[in-house]
Amino acid sequence: MNFISDNAYGASPQILASLTAANSGTETSYGEDAVTARVAEKLAAIFAHEVAVFPVVTGTAANALALAALCPPYGAVFCHKDSHIAVDECAAPEFFTGGAKLAQLDGDDAKLTPRIIEQVHARFGGGVHSPKPSVVSITQATELGTIYKLDEIRAIADVAHKHGMTLHMDGARFANALVSLGCTPAEMTWKAGVDALSFGATKNGALCAEAVVFFDRTRAEEFAYRRKKAGHLVSKMRFISAQLEAYLENDLWLANARRANALAKVLGDGLSAIPGVTLATPVEANGVFVWLPKTLAARLHKQGAKFYDWVAEPERIMARLIVSFATPEADVAKFIEAAKG
Amino acid sequence: MNFISDNAYGASPQILASLTAANSGTETSYGEDAVTARVAEKLAAIFAHEVAVFPVVTGTAANALALAALCPPYGAVFCHKDSHIAVDECAAPEFFTGGAKLAQLDGDDAKLTPRIIEQVHARFGGGVHSPKPSVVSITQATELGTIYKLDEIRAIADVAHKHGMTLHMDGARFANALVSLGCTPAEMTWKAGVDALSFGATKNGALCAEAVVFFDRTRAEEFAYRRKKAGHLVSKMRFISAQLEAYLENDLWLANARRANALAKVLGDGLSAIPGVTLATPVEANGVFVWLPKTLAARLHKQGAKFYDWVAEPERIMARLIVSFATPEADVAKFIEAAKG
Amino acid sequence: MNFISDNAYGASPQILASLTAANSGTETSYGEDAVTARVAEKLAAIFAHEVAVFPVVTGTAANALALAALCPPYGAVFCHKDSHIAVDECAAPEFFTGGAKLAQLDGDDAKLTPRIIEQVHARFGGGVHSPKPSVVSITQATELGTIYKLDEIRAIADVAHKHGMTLHMDGARFANALVSLGCTPAEMTWKAGVDALSFGATKNGALCAEAVVFFDRTRAEEFAYRRKKAGHLVSKMRFISAQLEAYLENDLWLANARRANALAKVLGDGLSAIPGVTLATPVEANGVFVWLPKTLAARLHKQGAKFYDWVAEPERIMARLIVSFATPEADVAKFIEAAKG
Amino acid sequence: MNFISDNAYGASPQILASLTAANSGTETSYGEDAVTARVAEKLAAIFAHEVAVFPVVTGTAANALALAALCPPYGAVFCHKDSHIAVDECAAPEFFTGGAKLAQLDGDDAKLTPRIIEQVHARFGGGVHSPKPSVVSITQATELGTIYKLDEIRAIADVAHKHGMTLHMDGARFANALVSLGCTPAEMTWKAGVDALSFGATKNGALCAEAVVFFDRTRAEEFAYRRKKAGHLVSKMRFISAQLEAYLENDLWLANARRANALAKVLGDGLSAIPGVTLATPVEANGVFVWLPKTLAARLHKQGAKFYDWVAEPERIMARLIVSFATPEADVAKFIEAAKG
Repeated sequence: MNFISDNAYGASPQILASLTAANSGTETSYGEDAVTARVAEKLAAIFAHEVAVFPVVTGTAANALALAALCPPYGAVFCHKDSHIAVDECAAPEFFTGGAKLAQLDGDDAKLTPRIIEQVHARFGGGVHSPKPSVVSITQATELGTIYKLDEIRAIADVAHKHGMTLHMDGARFANALVSLGCTPAEMTWKAGVDALSFGATKNGALCAEAVVFFDRTRAEEFAYRRKKAGHLVSKMRFISAQLEAYLENDLWLANARRANALAKVLGDGLSAIPGVTLATPVEANGVFVWLPKTLAARLHKQGAKFYDWVAEPERIMARLIVSFATPEADVAKFIEAAKG
Repeated sequence: MNFISDNAYGASPQILASLTAANSGTETSYGEDAVTARVAEKLAAIFAHEVAVFPVVTGTAANALALAALCPPYGAVFCHKDSHIAVDECAAPEFFTGGAKLAQLDGDDAKLTPRIIEQVHARFGGGVHSPKPSVVSITQATELGTIYKLDEIRAIADVAHKHGMTLHMDGARFANALVSLGCTPAEMTWKAGVDALSFGATKNGALCAEAVVFFDRTRAEEFAYRRKKAGHLVSKMRFISAQLEAYLENDLWLANARRANALAKVLGDGLSAIPGVTLATPVEANGVFVWLPKTLAARLHKQGAKFYDWVAEPERIMARLIVSFATPEADVAKFIEAAKG
Repeated sequence: MNFISDNAYGASPQILASLTAANSGTETSYGEDAVTARVAEKLAAIFAHEVAVFPVVTGTAANALALAALCPPYGAVFCHKDSHIAVDECAAPEFFTGGAKLAQLDGDDAKLTPRIIEQVHARFGGGVHSPKPSVVSITQATELGTIYKLDEIRAIADVAHKHGMTLHMDGARFANALVSLGCTPAEMTWKAGVDALSFGATKNGALCAEAVVFFDRTRAEEFAYRRKKAGHLVSKMRFISAQLEAYLENDLWLANARRANALAKVLGDGLSAIPGVTLATPVEANGVFVWLPKTLAARLHKQGAKFYDWVAEPERIMARLIVSFATPEADVAKFIEAAKG
Repeated sequence: MNFISDNAYGASPQILASLTAANSGTETSYGEDAVTARVAEKLAAIFAHEVAVFPVVTGTAANALALAALCPPYGAVFCHKDSHIAVDECAAPEFFTGGAKLAQLDGDDAKLTPRIIEQVHARFGGGVHSPKPSVVSITQATELGTIYKLDEIRAIADVAHKHGMTLHMDGARFANALVSLGCTPAEMTWKAGVDALSFGATKNGALCAEAVVFFDRTRAEEFAYRRKKAGHLVSKMRFISAQLEAYLENDLWLANARRANALAKVLGDGLSAIPGVTLATPVEANGVFVWLPKTLAARLHKQGAKFYDWVAEPERIMARLIVSFATPEADVAKFIEAAKG
């Protein structure tokens, strides 16, 4: 019963297999290979838009590099106070940008709103004493398993653009959000005003593959320098791109995400039916955030269930239960049973 | 006939297979897994010394992170003017250190000497106007395919330590150098005074796996922060460590290096026997640097041979021919024949 | 009626005169001059402790350089959410440290407490995903004109040191705080556990002179490199140090601060006696923070009074009124009269 | 007999007096004052061009900030290997830019040529493995007391612009160069293709005042953030600007430079007439670089003459003798006599 993280599971067999397929013969190194080119084409088709695509190996690299491309050293990135870039990346964005400020904003369900962005932007109006508001970054799905609706993204993009800021989306769980909304990749990104995307694959079945995606290709040349300078230009890039190719092939990414979301729904429904247990946020992707009495949480841990006590209160804890593409269905059922006691 | 780089070839089958083996079940993420622990133990045994081991995915990351750990922002790294860190990493060390200086020193055969280190150190004596000399970095094997002998490393370490500097070794081709010298890993590193090592595996058979190795474990905790902050802490680390495990298993790394070195010797001997062709540097590892008449180089390129014109002179070029663990023996013979015309 | 900032006024005549005195003859440049040496001795005497003293020209430089010396790039600085380093320095500390995180903590009257430090420290416990808690920084006097009592500083130092963190004091208004507490410089700093101090002089009578003071001299050599690298080593340093010398001579600094504090008290008392006007924080140094009905604030602005609307609410604003060493007594009386309407 | 540096002398009396004049009344702080505005206007008139002007207190700050505005973190600055930014600023440009590379080029008399720029640019052609060539920086007058002629600057600007690079001029001794060439400030800068200038005043009579000057005002807003973030926005800016105002008033700057240059000429002529003594470079500004027999140099040092042994050879040293705006005429005569023995 491992619900600790999407990262606890390995890789989809198709993705592993693609590495072997990519291993034959010689290839041009440093991303000039045929696999990488095919992935870029594939993503352009999926997004129905020109894109500049840069595979990297971690979500932190994707986010920090994307933000560094969008935010000058003297700029500020507006993000939710609980966002991954704010609290889980050892201040990588501050390092990659050369010292930009992450303004950590409030917001229910780990989501930003146009209103809070406007308020904080007004506070940064004192000229050079405050960093220049440069980027808004949202996470889709959020760190509390919730989803921005398309009109919510659009509204945030509008206020960002009005103030000369760009909109970045941390899509570490992009596929989970996409199948949850049932929209197209284009609708959830550039059509809603997203300028740059951290397109995640690792949590949803890859070994170590993410991609930074820009919808304006003029950013491409400069970004390539940043990736290299950060040590994130893998020499045998074909092996990173091959993961992405298999991930996108035959909609594996969507199938994996649907499976995880569906099981999360089952888990959330099962748990919330138990007296004394309530959902902390609606289950909209593959994360279940649920209030458990402290005694119950302790008992579950004792029984070997792995999950984070995300928030601790005197009488209860908010458990974070992440369901991955590979979590056994039986484990979900078993966990619900265990919780029922 | 691809001699452009070790990176042009894929991965050893054993290393690919290890990824599948590593894929079963759940694992703790972010490097707290069992595979990573085993690799650290294995390297401690190989080096016959306590070590702190940090797997990363590129050589640039290994070098730049190691240097950042050793050199303060106001420090200077002494390296050869043709070294990889100086000319091929888009100034990654300058970025990771927060602006340290790479002092680029002269030296025959791409090698530093105690004498040049002393001279340049004297030049940095003007107090805070010059960055503080902090690290000496050497490449083993060098960018011209040559090897530091053990007493040469020792002599450099002595002058570095005398001045309060540490000694870093860029071991992108560590195995090739090791089998060339026929010594132990301990002799080529900590016994000769090396403080930190970029231990390369990618060029010699891995997909994307290197390791930063410190011989003083007190550096470990702080370094872990640096790796995370740089986006180089891979979440499903087992897949990086599994490459290293297979690489070290049954001395695969040494076998791969021996094969490449032996073929390089064949190539060097074959070419230098041709009238008008002379070796630019002795063939000591898996690189062959050879002066070719311009017409010959052009003809070889035309015939589809891939290699770099490393240095261009009016009448001749210095060709760089890299032989990898996987270069077909037939290609070596074919290239020699082609060169004979 | 200018209460906008201590910076709105010029310099004390004694300090200006000291520049002329310092102008005769040649001097060793870059801080190796006799004036700078005398200032260091004088401060050692004033603090009754060995000190390493580094004059710089701005408070932002003093703070950011001090923090960079205390906090690694992968570290976190705990500070109040309204502190100058957090909101008024364009994220200079993030730049100078190479990307450290400023954790912005809550606290009444712009003051930190051991309790909030403990709480936030606990949140940073997740290993390398969070930056390493490295420094606590407090402002004395605070950005709301309040003062940390000696036992409050001691309690904060204890919790910082318990967690391996150092304590930095932003003393942009050090003299104002000191005369308010009526204690010795030693008592307000190293005796209370302060490790490093930004010792301000500009706001209290200098043209452009601050000093970074370390109570542990082993930090001295390395810091000198940082100051130079940041462009803050003034070549004709005697002219910065001469300001500090005159500032300390005959207790000019204390006299200036006493005058400003006393006038601030008069202003605070006068205003709080007006119906509908209330102090937002107690007047403990040279700042008066007072709630004014919006109509009154608007009227005062119209009459030419200069001050900041620090916080705006629907019906009232919190005015920030800063009294400097040179603010005319008559202006204080005039402002009170104007407010009485 | 102090010829160690222009910084060994104090300030021009007129500049000191301007500080007292600037001290009356209140002023808007952080550079929004009337004096700063007047200096900007004055410089626009002097350069016969729109300018964005940013006073700072050190030459290192002026250079490093200007380069950071012109060069991205992944860029390269081409400069002479003996230039101040390369060897005397503790790698400040690397820090301010966020890790850019300073490519240190060869060139006689400390001067760059279009030819060497072309050669090094060609070497940086390998895509993202090399930093992007972004800026050429020249020093006027150079670190060996020589001067770029107008057509030499133009030729360098042309090659820089051809490659999409900008041209920065380190004008720490701008006035000395200007009066040496006898041209207008416009001719020596924007008319010759200079994009940004570090306009020095400290070495030539100010206490601590330089200015970054851009000839394209669109760079202004962003640069203001950089200056603040680096702690170089002096709060009571009027006192920095007042120095610049007095410096420019009544052509004080040109008079000071003419005096220094003329005395340097006398010194150079006097020394080179001595048997065994030869000029190392022509005396074109206020520096005299002269080869002295070792015994002679030692004797002069013993007699109390202060100067640097700039280059040491077995039998002789190259002495650097700097004449400042305030060096006593008698000292020059005395030194020549002493050298005659």
